[in-house]
Amino acid sequence: MDDRSAAETTRTRDNEVKVDGLIGELLNKADIRINGDRPWDITIHDPNVPERALAYGNLGLGESYMDGGWDAERLDEFFFRLIRSHVHEQVQPLRLIFHSLRARLLNLQTARRSWQVGERHYDLGNEFYQAMLDKRMTYTCGYWKNARTLDEAQEAKLDLICRKLELKPGMRVLDIGCGWGSFMAYAAEHYDVSCVGITISREQAELGRRLCQGLPVEFRLQDYRDLDETFDRVVSVGMFEHVGRKNHREYMETAARCLKGDGLFLLHTIGKNVRNGTPDPWIDKHIFPNGDLPSLGQIAESSEDLFVIEDMHNFGADYDRTLLAWHDNVERAWPHFRDRYGERFHRMWRYYLLCCAGAFRARSIQLWQLVMAPQGLVGGYRRPAD
Amino acid sequence: MDDRSAAETTRTRDNEVKVDGLIGELLNKADIRINGDRPWDITIHDPNVPERALAYGNLGLGESYMDGGWDAERLDEFFFRLIRSHVHEQVQPLRLIFHSLRARLLNLQTARRSWQVGERHYDLGNEFYQAMLDKRMTYTCGYWKNARTLDEAQEAKLDLICRKLELKPGMRVLDIGCGWGSFMAYAAEHYDVSCVGITISREQAELGRRLCQGLPVEFRLQDYRDLDETFDRVVSVGMFEHVGRKNHREYMETAARCLKGDGLFLLHTIGKNVRNGTPDPWIDKHIFPNGDLPSLGQIAESSEDLFVIEDMHNFGADYDRTLLAWHDNVERAWPHFRDRYGERFHRMWRYYLLCCAGAFRARSIQLWQLVMAPQGLVGGYRRPAD
Repeated sequence: MDDRSAAETTRTRDNEVKVDGLIGELLNKADIRINGDRPWDITIHDPNVPERALAYGNLGLGESYMDGGWDAERLDEFFFRLIRSHVHEQVQPLRLIFHSLRARLLNLQTARRSWQVGERHYDLGNEFYQAMLDKRMTYTCGYWKNARTLDEAQEAKLDLICRKLELKPGMRVLDIGCGWGSFMAYAAEHYDVSCVGITISREQAELGRRLCQGLPVEFRLQDYRDLDETFDRVVSVGMFEHVGRKNHREYMETAARCLKGDGLFLLHTIGKNVRNGTPDPWIDKHIFPNGDLPSLGQIAESSEDLFVIEDMHNFGADYDRTLLAWHDNVERAWPHFRDRYGERFHRMWRYYLLCCAGAFRARSIQLWQLVMAPQGLVGGYRRPAD
Repeated sequence: MDDRSAAETTRTRDNEVKVDGLIGELLNKADIRINGDRPWDITIHDPNVPERALAYGNLGLGESYMDGGWDAERLDEFFFRLIRSHVHEQVQPLRLIFHSLRARLLNLQTARRSWQVGERHYDLGNEFYQAMLDKRMTYTCGYWKNARTLDEAQEAKLDLICRKLELKPGMRVLDIGCGWGSFMAYAAEHYDVSCVGITISREQAELGRRLCQGLPVEFRLQDYRDLDETFDRVVSVGMFEHVGRKNHREYMETAARCLKGDGLFLLHTIGKNVRNGTPDPWIDKHIFPNGDLPSLGQIAESSEDLFVIEDMHNFGADYDRTLLAWHDNVERAWPHFRDRYGERFHRMWRYYLLCCAGAFRARSIQLWQLVMAPQGLVGGYRRPAD
């Protein structure tokens, strides 16, 4: 099929772009109309959008959105329908094969490269994250089962982790990828434990230290591979996504090395449904450089002989609500940030939050909490009531 | 090292066998003494026992136990210590490599071979299983969290499955490997659903039909691969252990083919900690021919693209209590069966129940309940409270 038939675009009298060919057909399968009037329908302003989407998949779709080439009233609903109908899988541009091979063949998360995500994403500016996140600055999925607000959902998640880890007063806890320390502060305040957290973001560590002042909480700017110390508990919330398939085993070995024989390790991570999935090229380029979501098989195998998996809790649907809450916060605070970041950043950030919300809603990606014990607990493990 | 130094045996004045060399050293690591007086210490009556154990691993140890060559007051505690200390892994007789290769290279669970376990194990005699099991004849792990008796633990397990499956009146449920139908009867009675169960044991199907008389429950003597019909729910309790690694994918494809798009599939299975573990040769020869415990990685990968894993619950420690309860029942009923089965069978059965109890107590094997949904439930899945 030639490019013309794949995406024929013309302009109507009121200057809307009309699209025929493959793109129209694909969208039709997902019940999405171009220039329709439902919240998930899209309006195309730039006639090059269909071609960019076909040639570059989500990379083209996302970048043309950033450029103002198209709009949808509810981006999250647009993505939900696109992904749930599997239409997006029918656009697998050849040029992206390089991207896929890159993740398979190279170690994109060497100790040196790993700092990139810290510098590019997490060092974006604490003030912006303070506006977007809950009051404790927890940049991971909340737990919404009994929560009404973002603050409640994040507190419920932190407390759930503490109870799953069976924290007891006086324990020493290691937090691998501690962010601004929301877990460490919560655990120290409510469960009377002391914590060591490592992060690769300078800005996170600096603000984290201020936020945790007076608590038995220590921040270290350190790569996880350099850890060699023993703790009663190990926790890692929203960090494994950055580890990369070539390093899963070394990560698990680090967690095992740092944990007492009768200890517990809680791993909280986003995951994908199939082992050979490719990192999304738009997310990789604009949001999380070198990210690589694990599959459950990859987690199980990288932890073999090191841990018994005591429990696996999937609450991916809760990430949808978390992302919507972050999006609301960003929109509300935007007038304050407009001059500093500009409209292209605004559209990029909205695209990031809402395409992820749609993907979680479609159950195309998951959120797992796994509890692991070095040899399995004698007598067994029971997930606490929630 | 030659055979003499591996296991030097002599007889003491009161005709006990004394063992030096490797076996004594290994047992010492597990805190087990030969001729000691703690319940997990062992007494050796036949001087060939150490050599048989070294040459054939658990196959030799088990067969010499069946022959009356050695004893322990608490076999389960003996095995718990042996396995938890990893001493058993240091005996890897060369002759067992054949056994390991057999499982890797051959399909031991073809449609034809699969009936072997039905004929040899499950057709042993319904009366014997009636004496050993709970009143509903549930030959799988019970759920002991709030239970005091075997009957309560089995009922709690059946009810937990019904609630995890979110059964609603009028639903049609498929039970792959239904045994004597305890799940189907419970679900039909308490949740007003109708069930179709398949089994490969003629004796199970016959007694099952009698036990379920008057209920909307159908038994079929059928291989799972021949199923092609759609149900609201699929359940499979204690059957995946017999499927075999070469057939995991076909089994998952069957479950997916038989399930409606918005349905739920509950898989209840014993599992092992590492992918490349070998079926135990004694269990394979004497108890479950052609069994092959899956690893979590194998389950995750064989279900990729077919199911989203919504929840994973590990209650392997509960199998320990279940097996002890079955053992108690067998011992109590033994006078009634002595003449029919003989003492060698009695010792074989005790060895089976108690070596498995020890392995679950040592957390060397697991019991998993996984809830899966074809594309993942929109809105997410919540494990019910228990």
